Amino acid sequence: MKKILVIGIGAGNPDYITMQAVNALNRTDVFFILDKGPAKEKLTQLRKDICERYIQNHEYRFVEATLPERTRGVADYHGAVVDLNLAKEALFEQLINEQLAEDECGAFLVWGDPSLYDSTIRILNALIKRRGLQLEYEVIPGITSIQALTAQHKVPLNEIGDAVEITTGRRLAERRVHYGSNMVVMLDAENSYQCVPGDEYEIYWGAYIGTPDQILMSGRVDEVKAEIDRVRAEAREKNGWIMDTYLLKRI
Amino acid sequence: MKKILVIGIGAGNPDYITMQAVNALNRTDVFFILDKGPAKEKLTQLRKDICERYIQNHEYRFVEATLPERTRGVADYHGAVVDLNLAKEALFEQLINEQLAEDECGAFLVWGDPSLYDSTIRILNALIKRRGLQLEYEVIPGITSIQALTAQHKVPLNEIGDAVEITTGRRLAERRVHYGSNMVVMLDAENSYQCVPGDEYEIYWGAYIGTPDQILMSGRVDEVKAEIDRVRAEAREKNGWIMDTYLLKRI
Ligand SMILES: C[S@@+](CC[C@H](N)C(=O)[O-])C[C@H]1O[C@@H](n2cnc3c(N)ncnc32)[C@H](O)[C@@H]1O
Ligand SMILES: C[S@@+](CC[C@H](N)C(=O)[O-])C[C@H]1O[C@@H](n2cnc3c(N)ncnc32)[C@H](O)[C@@H]1O
Repeated sequence: MKKILVIGIGAGNPDYITMQAVNALNRTDVFFILDKGPAKEKLTQLRKDICERYIQNHEYRFVEATLPERTRGVADYHGAVVDLNLAKEALFEQLINEQLAEDECGAFLVWGDPSLYDSTIRILNALIKRRGLQLEYEVIPGITSIQALTAQHKVPLNEIGDAVEITTGRRLAERRVHYGSNMVVMLDAENSYQCVPGDEYEIYWGAYIGTPDQILMSGRVDEVKAEIDRVRAEAREKNGWIMDTYLLKRI
Repeated sequence: MKKILVIGIGAGNPDYITMQAVNALNRTDVFFILDKGPAKEKLTQLRKDICERYIQNHEYRFVEATLPERTRGVADYHGAVVDLNLAKEALFEQLINEQLAEDECGAFLVWGDPSLYDSTIRILNALIKRRGLQLEYEVIPGITSIQALTAQHKVPLNEIGDAVEITTGRRLAERRVHYGSNMVVMLDAENSYQCVPGDEYEIYWGAYIGTPDQILMSGRVDEVKAEIDRVRAEAREKNGWIMDTYLLKRI
């Protein structure tokens, strides 16, 4: 049976990689590299660096393919992601059929943790359940950008005994959040921290966390939001892309 | 200046440890070991095993102390935890003052990730800000029991573009949750999965995840809850304690 490893490599610092992930890298024959977007080159290089650094005495090869991209700016975000996932399923199926021999082990190196806002697990489950692909697979957890954020700010994720909501910039912008004591916002394309009552929340913001480009800012939302806007625009301009995450804590 | 490292060691499998954590272990002179409760011995041994396994050519010592415990069964859970944290602050201050020399590096090995339902960061921040302790400290992220759970079940934490609520068994039992598409429940002393509409949610349950005692169960809540009750009671009886976490997914 073909075997696939879905390996979380952590979100940022190459030292976030776990021993379990290092062991998994050393069992892999074929790495599927499927980056996209403006950071494509950087992300692909990072994956190759990780392999070079941690794999010893084991032959491996890379298979690169270009991921289909989501149609941007359409109203039906969910529908666009579903369509995209169908296209990804077809690509994954083709790669596994054509590029992986029967007794070989393939791997996907997932940024952060594979369970958090990533489609690899969903696609493999669909291939097995809906398309009947013969496949065995394992998931290896990784440090998420949420853990990276809280570690760098040295701040607890939750208040004592309280809940935490993990959500997206899109939902926050549409006010589809619960305004609890602690909210984590990911995938924010448009500075949605502007949408919370600025005198009621503190923000712990981080971009490119764990990398040499890391930027951290924190403070009462109404006191720091203009500065975050500025720094964020500048960084995005300079790098061509940005990845940022933030924690909102009720004061 | 004295230095403290708060090192997340992952929740369960010793291979969840990151390279960053291994590097941190190798910079530490004094490990403060502060376990408590029925699993005390096992947890203490596990920390010592991790040190032995990953520290090379570096002298270190253990300082063990018994953590004060929360008064159980009182109505004011939050108040009990705050009192407990004051007692812990006093203990931490004493240990750092008496057991760590001026140029030494101390460490706390935190189960899972230090930001998630753990008081170490909160206590150190209080010692520095409120008690004026001269101290530098760093936080090293770890794999949480949430990532361990989703990896073992091979299930995404979130629905596409949707939010996730991380909460406690106590809050679920008191119906203080938002019944969104995905909820993670931790710190559940009393089978609170009984409290969701059983035909509307699937549960992905795990106990002792990542350890040799790991138990996983999943299914529609009303179809599996009696069996989880049974297995949970049996495991708790056998081991003297249980740690379990689960994901509830709206069907
Ligand atoms: C598609 S999601 C993938 C999340 C990833 N699986 C994880 O575990 O963090 C991408 C989002 O993750 C967040 N992110 C990932 N890496 C980050 C980093 N190093 N610094 C800040 N945010 C990051 C950003 O919110 C970004 O929009
Ligand atoms: C005080 S909290 C600490 C959480 C930890 N800092 C983390 O990152 O997972 C303890 C709770 O974590 C969960 N937990 C920790 N380790 C676990 C494991 N190996 N299996 C299942 N649940 C676990 C349980 O819900 C338990 O009640």
